[in-house]
Amino acid sequence: MFRSHTNGELSLKNLNETVTLSGWVQTIRDKGFMIWIDLRDRYGVTQLLLDEERSTEELMKAAKNLGREFVIQVEGKVIERTSKNPKIPTGDIEILVETLTILNESQLPPFTIEDETDGGEELRMKYRYLDIRRNPVREKLIFRSKIAQKVRNYLSDQNFIEVETPVLIKSTPEGARDFVVPSRMNEGQFYALPQSPQTFKQLLMIGGMDRYFQIVKCFRDEDLRADRQPEFTQIDCELAFVEQEDVLQIFEGLASHLISEISGKETGKFPRITYEEAMQKYGNDKPDIRFGMEFVELNEETKGKDFKIFDEAELVVGINVENCAEYTRKQIDALVDFVKKPQVGASGLIWIKKQADGSVTSSVNKFFDEESLSKIAEKFNAKAGDLMLIMSGTENKVRAQLSALRMELGNQLNLRNPKDFAPLWVLDFPLLEWDEETERYHAMHHPFTAPKPEDEHLLTENPGKARANAYDLVLNGNEIGGGSVRIFNKEMQSRMFDLLGFSKEDAEAQFGFLMNAFKYGAPPHAGIALGFDRLVAILDGNETIRDYIAFPKNNSGRDVMIDAPSKISDEQLEELSLKLN
Amino acid sequence: MFRSHTNGELSLKNLNETVTLSGWVQTIRDKGFMIWIDLRDRYGVTQLLLDEERSTEELMKAAKNLGREFVIQVEGKVIERTSKNPKIPTGDIEILVETLTILNESQLPPFTIEDETDGGEELRMKYRYLDIRRNPVREKLIFRSKIAQKVRNYLSDQNFIEVETPVLIKSTPEGARDFVVPSRMNEGQFYALPQSPQTFKQLLMIGGMDRYFQIVKCFRDEDLRADRQPEFTQIDCELAFVEQEDVLQIFEGLASHLISEISGKETGKFPRITYEEAMQKYGNDKPDIRFGMEFVELNEETKGKDFKIFDEAELVVGINVENCAEYTRKQIDALVDFVKKPQVGASGLIWIKKQADGSVTSSVNKFFDEESLSKIAEKFNAKAGDLMLIMSGTENKVRAQLSALRMELGNQLNLRNPKDFAPLWVLDFPLLEWDEETERYHAMHHPFTAPKPEDEHLLTENPGKARANAYDLVLNGNEIGGGSVRIFNKEMQSRMFDLLGFSKEDAEAQFGFLMNAFKYGAPPHAGIALGFDRLVAILDGNETIRDYIAFPKNNSGRDVMIDAPSKISDEQLEELSLKLN
Repeated sequence: MFRSHTNGELSLKNLNETVTLSGWVQTIRDKGFMIWIDLRDRYGVTQLLLDEERSTEELMKAAKNLGREFVIQVEGKVIERTSKNPKIPTGDIEILVETLTILNESQLPPFTIEDETDGGEELRMKYRYLDIRRNPVREKLIFRSKIAQKVRNYLSDQNFIEVETPVLIKSTPEGARDFVVPSRMNEGQFYALPQSPQTFKQLLMIGGMDRYFQIVKCFRDEDLRADRQPEFTQIDCELAFVEQEDVLQIFEGLASHLISEISGKETGKFPRITYEEAMQKYGNDKPDIRFGMEFVELNEETKGKDFKIFDEAELVVGINVENCAEYTRKQIDALVDFVKKPQVGASGLIWIKKQADGSVTSSVNKFFDEESLSKIAEKFNAKAGDLMLIMSGTENKVRAQLSALRMELGNQLNLRNPKDFAPLWVLDFPLLEWDEETERYHAMHHPFTAPKPEDEHLLTENPGKARANAYDLVLNGNEIGGGSVRIFNKEMQSRMFDLLGFSKEDAEAQFGFLMNAFKYGAPPHAGIALGFDRLVAILDGNETIRDYIAFPKNNSGRDVMIDAPSKISDEQLEELSLKLN
Repeated sequence: MFRSHTNGELSLKNLNETVTLSGWVQTIRDKGFMIWIDLRDRYGVTQLLLDEERSTEELMKAAKNLGREFVIQVEGKVIERTSKNPKIPTGDIEILVETLTILNESQLPPFTIEDETDGGEELRMKYRYLDIRRNPVREKLIFRSKIAQKVRNYLSDQNFIEVETPVLIKSTPEGARDFVVPSRMNEGQFYALPQSPQTFKQLLMIGGMDRYFQIVKCFRDEDLRADRQPEFTQIDCELAFVEQEDVLQIFEGLASHLISEISGKETGKFPRITYEEAMQKYGNDKPDIRFGMEFVELNEETKGKDFKIFDEAELVVGINVENCAEYTRKQIDALVDFVKKPQVGASGLIWIKKQADGSVTSSVNKFFDEESLSKIAEKFNAKAGDLMLIMSGTENKVRAQLSALRMELGNQLNLRNPKDFAPLWVLDFPLLEWDEETERYHAMHHPFTAPKPEDEHLLTENPGKARANAYDLVLNGNEIGGGSVRIFNKEMQSRMFDLLGFSKEDAEAQFGFLMNAFKYGAPPHAGIALGFDRLVAILDGNETIRDYIAFPKNNSGRDVMIDAPSKISDEQLEELSLKLN
């Protein structure tokens, strides 16, 4: 037996008990005649004591030879501490060590195993197993596991069945790039790893499973942007005999359950806005509504003042930043610099201040008299002391630019408290989006999403205008889930593949099994998938998902700890009938 | 709203309520003036009624045009049935249909969607989504999901943390063949899919996670034997600061919890036998102990009787089959035929009968007089009416052959009731086994298993004799789990790789990260992995795992439903820098 207790559980209640503990040496304080050791494990830290009077010379010597991260086992008596540490649960006691065994030695670790470490990102990834010893990292992984458990229990209570769908499936050209797996037994053929279990969950609905979920790994071979992983985890769900409203209610239930379990706060009913409204109000289909600064469109108010930039713009739009009229020239210049950054890409920014005395001034006083400015301020509902920021340009671009500015100000003004949760539903997404590059429509959600019944006629008249019963669950400016009501008849699915530019043959070869399944009594169904990595990060008040993944890959898709991917042997290649090019 | 209730919940309590139901048409009984429809969903079946007197002509006509597996929605009133069906929960009521909507039509399915179907295996695999509509299949998937939930809750209660380990890892030559995944971003390099998360769970222990589990997909590119799948699911666990005894107790707890939840039966403490004892008593390291017929070795008792076959045999060994002395010549011949089958491979079988009157006779009366036979019978502890069956040959072969015969008799005599659960631990497995083909030692469990401390000296003297603290959990003749105490220091791990014929370079290239990790304070640790597919099947009283997998692959590793694997495009190959050979 390596331990009678963990390092997190002993207290005054255990006084005078003889206990056995195991763990890692966190720190050693050697005062010569007395030695204190902090012994650490997953559960906490317990202080060990050796002193000249009560410990043997041999024991003292052994303790002096210990190093950080040595794995030791001690036996000793629980005694009361002279100077207590109220910060930790075991802070009232210490262990007077009677025997000490080194279970394993440790070299000096490449970075300190402390809450605040001196190790850089790369080093910590290479020695991820040491990084995981640090409390903040371990706690994140434990948090993730707890959320998974809560999700499973909630959905099971709602009659959802967790079904494991296959990982070795079929490559399809739609969506992102697939990872593929050469088949040895089927020469020249490949499996693909799923980007999502989409078709399988639909087949489960056709199979009468009624309510399916799965917390499941998915894969995308995309060039990795920061904080994207080639393998990621999804809470994948599908329901039969439901309408959009049913899905929204159930998953609003799940999300508010998780938020209230984590934060103790009740979210109330989630706001719902349409995609169009989200773009108009926030320039963004995943708005952070922890703060206001809603967009105000000003084409009417600004036109005809000889200010060419506004007059010629497709859209003039601004936000009102409360209580910021006292911003200095330098502060405003910094905002102008921000919007001019390549990743935002604007050419500039107009400001109007409603001063404390109620007067209005601006960076365009040359074109706008006080009356015109006051009218604009009125449109903004600006109060004395507010700062208005206005941008202009083509509709899509200026919205994206102003949205970036809005988020920047949200950050600067500390309006994005990670402990606050502001969920909402964004509804009525367009069914299709036109891709300039490939000159064809792409499915905005995926090719299995049904058009809104009232928009079906648009599929012939103006496909780009057709909306879908597609919905996103947005939390604190992040899309944490998305889904849709699905097509469940063969004709509509064929029509959709046509619109997406599939030939009949391709559609048949890729999705024939699904269209075939639609012939045998497919029920109406709908579903949703939540990005589990991101959901967990946000619920824990963070935005970087990498910390919540036990063994993440870097931006080149490499696991630097195990050094994967790597070369394989010629025999392996030959067995797979493959050659490197 | 597609339904107010499911098809499994209405009863007399709902009398006269107006309800909306949706589901599949299971059967239609059309008596002309009255039509009954069984409406099915996941939750049950509800009987719908239409009759000439109370239903409109239009409605009657619509109902007459329905076919099996049509998806319909009806509104109607709950009424009491005239002839009740006590077999189903909704058997007291029926729905007098007021409106009927066809949500989707169905072609005639390729096999009947009934508990007993007319569809063959292959057809049911191709239309797996229809097979899943059948109660027995759906129930198996639901059973699986419930067991997973119970496992998760049990282990979480025991402080285990579920951690997701990566799917895109590194190919290693040890063990079975890996599936590999070419990396586009790292040209010429490959990921591998994990055969198990072995090294990652060990790194989690080094990382101080203390207790890890995961229900996780694993992958093996092996030629598929019946009932083997290229992707399978494992309950994977690892614990730090534990000895073998801790692991046995915790997972005995899990297994007996599951058995008692399923069967209501308490298992009591699991028997434990050593590998050696299992081979001696049952000729098998995963003995089915629902019945006795333990092996009795008879070299002493049979030698010197001029019966050459026995005299020359390394091992003479038999089983006593209770109450089977009345077996006819024909029945015994059938057993002889059985052991002569190529998959058993024996040359014959000797029998001895202890007759009802206590006299003893045999197929070798020529060599053995009644006294000798009686002595043998005594060794068997045979009672009047028992049949003894004896085989001989080289130790390993004859044990395997007699084991096959023992299992065959267990089946024939109905001693293997799938509702009985007989778990046991098999302990002290050999560390290594000699492989004639490659002329080197292979790890019996895996290369990370530690030798028993008392056997460490054998690694130099006689490696094949060294035993490990490796253990298998066996249930009803199936290995449902296996694990071991792990090596946790670099020197021992290096030594093990040496013994397994790894060059220093290969060991470093493949497992350098693990041996490196051992330098930084690796704790003692041990673990176990349970085959989830098989565990679920056995707990449900079955032995074929395929039924418990939603979308299984066939013996060529193909998913015949989606037709995977398949060819990929030349562009995909090019992006991966690959050529077909």
